[in-house]
Amino acid sequence: MSLRFLTLLSFIIIIGISCNNAEGKNSADDNSGKYVLVVHGGAGTISRQTMTPEREAQYRAGIEAALKAGYKIIEEGGEALDAVEAAVRILEDDSLFNAGKGSVFTHDGRNELDASIMDGRNRNAGAIAGVTIIKNPITAARAVMEKSEHVMLAGRGAELFAIEQNIDTVSPEYFRTEPRWRGLQRSLRADSLKKVNSTASLPADPDQKFGTVGCVALDKNGNLAAGTSTGGMNNKKYGRIGDAPIIGAGSFADNKTVAVSCTGWGEFYIRNVVAYDVSAQMEYKNMSIAEASASVIKKVGDAGGNGGLIAIDKNGNIAMPFNTSGMYRGAITKDGKIEVYFYND
Amino acid sequence: MSLRFLTLLSFIIIIGISCNNAEGKNSADDNSGKYVLVVHGGAGTISRQTMTPEREAQYRAGIEAALKAGYKIIEEGGEALDAVEAAVRILEDDSLFNAGKGSVFTHDGRNELDASIMDGRNRNAGAIAGVTIIKNPITAARAVMEKSEHVMLAGRGAELFAIEQNIDTVSPEYFRTEPRWRGLQRSLRADSLKKVNSTASLPADPDQKFGTVGCVALDKNGNLAAGTSTGGMNNKKYGRIGDAPIIGAGSFADNKTVAVSCTGWGEFYIRNVVAYDVSAQMEYKNMSIAEASASVIKKVGDAGGNGGLIAIDKNGNIAMPFNTSGMYRGAITKDGKIEVYFYND
Repeated sequence: MSLRFLTLLSFIIIIGISCNNAEGKNSADDNSGKYVLVVHGGAGTISRQTMTPEREAQYRAGIEAALKAGYKIIEEGGEALDAVEAAVRILEDDSLFNAGKGSVFTHDGRNELDASIMDGRNRNAGAIAGVTIIKNPITAARAVMEKSEHVMLAGRGAELFAIEQNIDTVSPEYFRTEPRWRGLQRSLRADSLKKVNSTASLPADPDQKFGTVGCVALDKNGNLAAGTSTGGMNNKKYGRIGDAPIIGAGSFADNKTVAVSCTGWGEFYIRNVVAYDVSAQMEYKNMSIAEASASVIKKVGDAGGNGGLIAIDKNGNIAMPFNTSGMYRGAITKDGKIEVYFYND
Repeated sequence: MSLRFLTLLSFIIIIGISCNNAEGKNSADDNSGKYVLVVHGGAGTISRQTMTPEREAQYRAGIEAALKAGYKIIEEGGEALDAVEAAVRILEDDSLFNAGKGSVFTHDGRNELDASIMDGRNRNAGAIAGVTIIKNPITAARAVMEKSEHVMLAGRGAELFAIEQNIDTVSPEYFRTEPRWRGLQRSLRADSLKKVNSTASLPADPDQKFGTVGCVALDKNGNLAAGTSTGGMNNKKYGRIGDAPIIGAGSFADNKTVAVSCTGWGEFYIRNVVAYDVSAQMEYKNMSIAEASASVIKKVGDAGGNGGLIAIDKNGNIAMPFNTSGMYRGAITKDGKIEVYFYND
């Protein structure tokens, strides 16, 4: 009894510590090796205070639908790569998330989408950047990986490639949603106010900055895969490319170590090669997935950046650290048990 | 006399070993800590058999001019970042090298240029991809780093940004050189022959595939910087982006470890996060610059890719490994001594 009591006490202490952890750890970080798939729908200023029960239910439904779509494939013995693509497509089609249908607008009032995918079996990878007519960028990224000699295609060239591959295209208007359009207008007003008074600011759209979706998966054959998709940064200018389509920054997967998908202030993620750095620290420093993921998010924070990441290792351990007030995220176990989290408390 | 003879004998043995080293090591890899700047002008099928003395002299002059331009800045107490930019600009303006003026053509007969630069002091970085009117892409990449909130800008947006920053622009015809145009025509003929007979091939342009230029430097304040610039892959399609503008793949610099610039089959460099992996292995595995650089080039080769890289660490040790038959490269010491190498034998 005394031993059991001590074990229970330790467990309570660990939970207590993790609940107060600024890096947003939660019970899924216990590394119990039971997970098969993790998704995220972006990190940012997500807090209980600004969330309504209706909106919370919508986000939860979106995350759960993505988890289930990916899980179905894994459960039936399918490939991690297929599961990642299926889960990300669900999030791209859901206008709540900043990817595919819910993408934010550029400064010029366009929707320019980026995505990347990576296969842990062989480090094959594909990415597209700055596309405006591809319904599901993650599927186009996969086609770049599997049907071209290249890893990364951009702009009109990427669209021509996708058309040749019979990938679904849509009119650019498909991506227009009113909440995102209003988000752009708020930012444009804030810009013009700043021109008059450099210290002025308007409240930002809480979801706008780090909206990205992603998925990492482990299949029954021990293969890992990672995918990330985004509409980029609200009000972005000059053909800016963030971390989402950059292999090593936004996505990375290697069966030897880990699959990672990031969401955050892209510039800091590129400069810190975030997704690959999780893998490098696991491989070269023998860190656990939790240690490596937390270490990398700390680096991003120390540099002045913020955001989060999701990761799954070859043993089914996961990590979902972030240094923002919240990150839409969820995981599903081998047995189909779903966990969904939004906040860091 | 006997000691001198032994020293000479050792030297001959070392030279003999380096001549047989498939990874293209040479005397500069002795890590004597005396170097301040290294440049490369691309790796590929460079061999004594296909090189004329006139052409060799031209390449040597180009590499030396770049080394001297960078060295002048370092010698006068200037910044590594300025030295890298100055050296890369010389190579961009030299039509022998596949960057700036000597860029190869895309499948559509255009010149689309990419570049990246990174500051080892703070991991600040800038990159541009797919630009067609910027005379010196390395200077535009630096402006992205210093004058924008972003790391990477692409296409027309990147050009608009450069114009706003008063960076020199040129008509796209500026980049047209006859040797590169003929290289594209050869590739297009090879493509059409392949359509008739899938096993047919024409001899490739020896320089076309991995033409890239780059520079790494260490200044008197112990700061490192890296820069890379390219016209990309001859006959490239679909807005393909290689490793040159990808931070972590084509360029990386951190004062704690190393500055790296790569040249090679870009897809393999992206998938293996080559530039950052040199730094990661030095930081996490306590490898020397020579060990880490050789290890990463071996990974590229094992995956089926080829190319090379140049690197300089905080102590002035350098490495210039490659797994092709040659790489245009040169280094300059603190005392202004210039070394230039082309081949792996």
